[in-house]
Amino acid sequence: MAITLHASDADFEDRFSRFLTTKREASPDVEAAVREIITAVRERGDAALLDYTLRFDRADLTQSCLAVTRAEIEHAYVEADPTTVEALKFARDRILAHHSRQRPADDRYADPIGVELGTRWTPIESVGLYVPGGTAAYPSSVLMNAVPASVAGVPRLVMVVPPSGGTINPLVLVAADIAGVDEIYRIGGAQAVAALAYGTESIRPVAKIVGPGNAYVAAAKREVFGTVGIDMIAGPSEVLVIADAANDPDWIAADLLAQAEHDSAAQSILITDDAAFGQAVSAAVERQLAMLPRAETAAASWRDFGAIILVSSLDEAVPLANRIAAEHVELAFDGAEAFLQKLNNAGSVFLGRYTPEVIGDYVGGTNHVLPTARSARFSSGLSVLDFMKRSSILKLGPEQLRALAPAAIRLAQAEGLDAHARSVSIRLNGLPG
Amino acid sequence: MAITLHASDADFEDRFSRFLTTKREASPDVEAAVREIITAVRERGDAALLDYTLRFDRADLTQSCLAVTRAEIEHAYVEADPTTVEALKFARDRILAHHSRQRPADDRYADPIGVELGTRWTPIESVGLYVPGGTAAYPSSVLMNAVPASVAGVPRLVMVVPPSGGTINPLVLVAADIAGVDEIYRIGGAQAVAALAYGTESIRPVAKIVGPGNAYVAAAKREVFGTVGIDMIAGPSEVLVIADAANDPDWIAADLLAQAEHDSAAQSILITDDAAFGQAVSAAVERQLAMLPRAETAAASWRDFGAIILVSSLDEAVPLANRIAAEHVELAFDGAEAFLQKLNNAGSVFLGRYTPEVIGDYVGGTNHVLPTARSARFSSGLSVLDFMKRSSILKLGPEQLRALAPAAIRLAQAEGLDAHARSVSIRLNGLPG
Repeated sequence: MAITLHASDADFEDRFSRFLTTKREASPDVEAAVREIITAVRERGDAALLDYTLRFDRADLTQSCLAVTRAEIEHAYVEADPTTVEALKFARDRILAHHSRQRPADDRYADPIGVELGTRWTPIESVGLYVPGGTAAYPSSVLMNAVPASVAGVPRLVMVVPPSGGTINPLVLVAADIAGVDEIYRIGGAQAVAALAYGTESIRPVAKIVGPGNAYVAAAKREVFGTVGIDMIAGPSEVLVIADAANDPDWIAADLLAQAEHDSAAQSILITDDAAFGQAVSAAVERQLAMLPRAETAAASWRDFGAIILVSSLDEAVPLANRIAAEHVELAFDGAEAFLQKLNNAGSVFLGRYTPEVIGDYVGGTNHVLPTARSARFSSGLSVLDFMKRSSILKLGPEQLRALAPAAIRLAQAEGLDAHARSVSIRLNGLPG
Repeated sequence: MAITLHASDADFEDRFSRFLTTKREASPDVEAAVREIITAVRERGDAALLDYTLRFDRADLTQSCLAVTRAEIEHAYVEADPTTVEALKFARDRILAHHSRQRPADDRYADPIGVELGTRWTPIESVGLYVPGGTAAYPSSVLMNAVPASVAGVPRLVMVVPPSGGTINPLVLVAADIAGVDEIYRIGGAQAVAALAYGTESIRPVAKIVGPGNAYVAAAKREVFGTVGIDMIAGPSEVLVIADAANDPDWIAADLLAQAEHDSAAQSILITDDAAFGQAVSAAVERQLAMLPRAETAAASWRDFGAIILVSSLDEAVPLANRIAAEHVELAFDGAEAFLQKLNNAGSVFLGRYTPEVIGDYVGGTNHVLPTARSARFSSGLSVLDFMKRSSILKLGPEQLRALAPAAIRLAQAEGLDAHARSVSIRLNGLPG
């Protein structure tokens, strides 16, 4: 059973602080192993990929089998359940429509003295998308990573997915195909990250690597960062549900359990202003747990990291929610819109009583790759911007150079950078007019 | 003397690839030392800060002296050269005006079936700005980091700067003050990063840390990443100048040297379509070197990492420039605007013959914190967006939930996440209407 905290208790601040800083995930020390794998891939290329894939994924690939072929993708459409394929396309269309609004606009203007300034956005030239194998191979995650890259205009989108026991989930291949992935390789782990970062005989390197993975993948991404860009390092998922007594306790319990079933390190938190409602939700959680196939995982998550926090009014929840900075926040009460204006730290917000967080996991249109572990305090969910970069632009004529030169020269001299000062002053003598 | 590469030579591709992958900076292994410092600050707070400041900065602070007082800031205005203060204000106003255009717009709309979607941007609640001490304490860098944070609306902006030998450059204090910094502490190194990330008795923690620093600072930022956000890890500076023979070789040489004087690991590259012009620039570099106070640094940079690349036409420079992905790119020829449309990887671009890169270092208005070491392939210069984060918003009514539910349930089931499916299906029975 989850802990219950009363905001009015004298020791609440202590207990809440401790709750906030509880580490939910041990990070195993895999750095040395990962460095060795990366070195091997850099030195031996494809041969190292084949070795590691045999060892870790128990799949015997010849070099010619690294790439998934068009025929295999077509076959995946045949193997996949048609209703699920339709659901994936439905999700793809909704994600595409929403993310299309995120495309940033270039800017170019002249200021009052005629200096031209600007901003130019361009897609990253090539992006690698890591997709975990086995049961964690979520086709929805393929869409959430690949669609924003497509919208950004990334010309080359490469997916890697380990062939757990030799096979790849056909829905993952279908999702990749409908989302615009250009190349797919059946490799995983740190060796796949190394191949994407440094390239091999068969795989050209990319400029950025995104997507979730296990501890080895996360460590490999940290290791190659700088050589390529990486996205955030995702932690276990979390939901904060803020709900009043007018909700059906069973609906709220279902939302808490949807998060908890992800991972025993996932976290589900309810804040409510009604103790009886809190108890009703707690009871509903226990009841529903019994029906879940993933009951063991969900029960562990709820027991170890779940919480019900009682406040005297939902206004009191504002500072708590901002400190929790949850990945997902449901606001299931009538004043949700007003609350939203004060909710500054949240990856994704779900308003009202008819917006379960799960809708956002699949078909809402917003992205489900979101900041975890309180990182919504300083970072955002995946968006089109993560697949583009910005060049700033400056253009002066002789007149503008004359206007800006004195301050630039003064500051360069004050910083002891004489060559900087000279690069401006040398031009002043030669200006026309 | 820099190397010269001819694009038409048979071995050009080999030599250019090698040139691109040359490591310019050794990263000393300071991780163990940094971890020890961070642990000490977490355990002993202010006392550890005082110890390390005495040891590393040879400054004896009592706890009450950690914070720079208002009186000290007022005194800095008196100490500072008035013309330089005016130049800083001029720069601040120009940086402010340009960055104000980067403020992102919130979005909220209903799609054709009535699902409400949105994006809400909020400032990061507190940001720490690291400023190096000694000769690397550049007031211009304070402006470039603090002004975008101010524009973003960051409510609490904290600066740390080591008191090298006990004192802080008055221009750094003035720059902080005019840029809107709220708190200043005279600490530096890994201990300052730890204090910002975890807090001490005197310093409340922040949510993100930005700003350049030495190897210890960079390692400390990597180490606290996750607990707080960090900006990019900046490497040595670089400029790519693309110029035709119509330029004054002395002007171009001055620009190459402005970059080279930063650091012996800085890099200056000229691409030109005229061999005689290349030689003239090379000769001008040698001539000007003799006049520079920082000649030793600039000469080492030019000798070890400088290059002149000869192409038969400037069009040939497009793919080379995109592979170099330089922090700064000057396009000093008549077709600069057309070239810009094909230049995809560049931190900041300077157009025409009257826009020396140095203008962008100080008073152009664009930011001078830019991606180095080829990272312009996947990242951008500092902007207002680095000081904000985005929450996505989703709002369904009963009708919209009914429309989206089947696909969401289908995908959840396909992924084996039954609690996800139940969180949607449980609501369907209870929907009004």
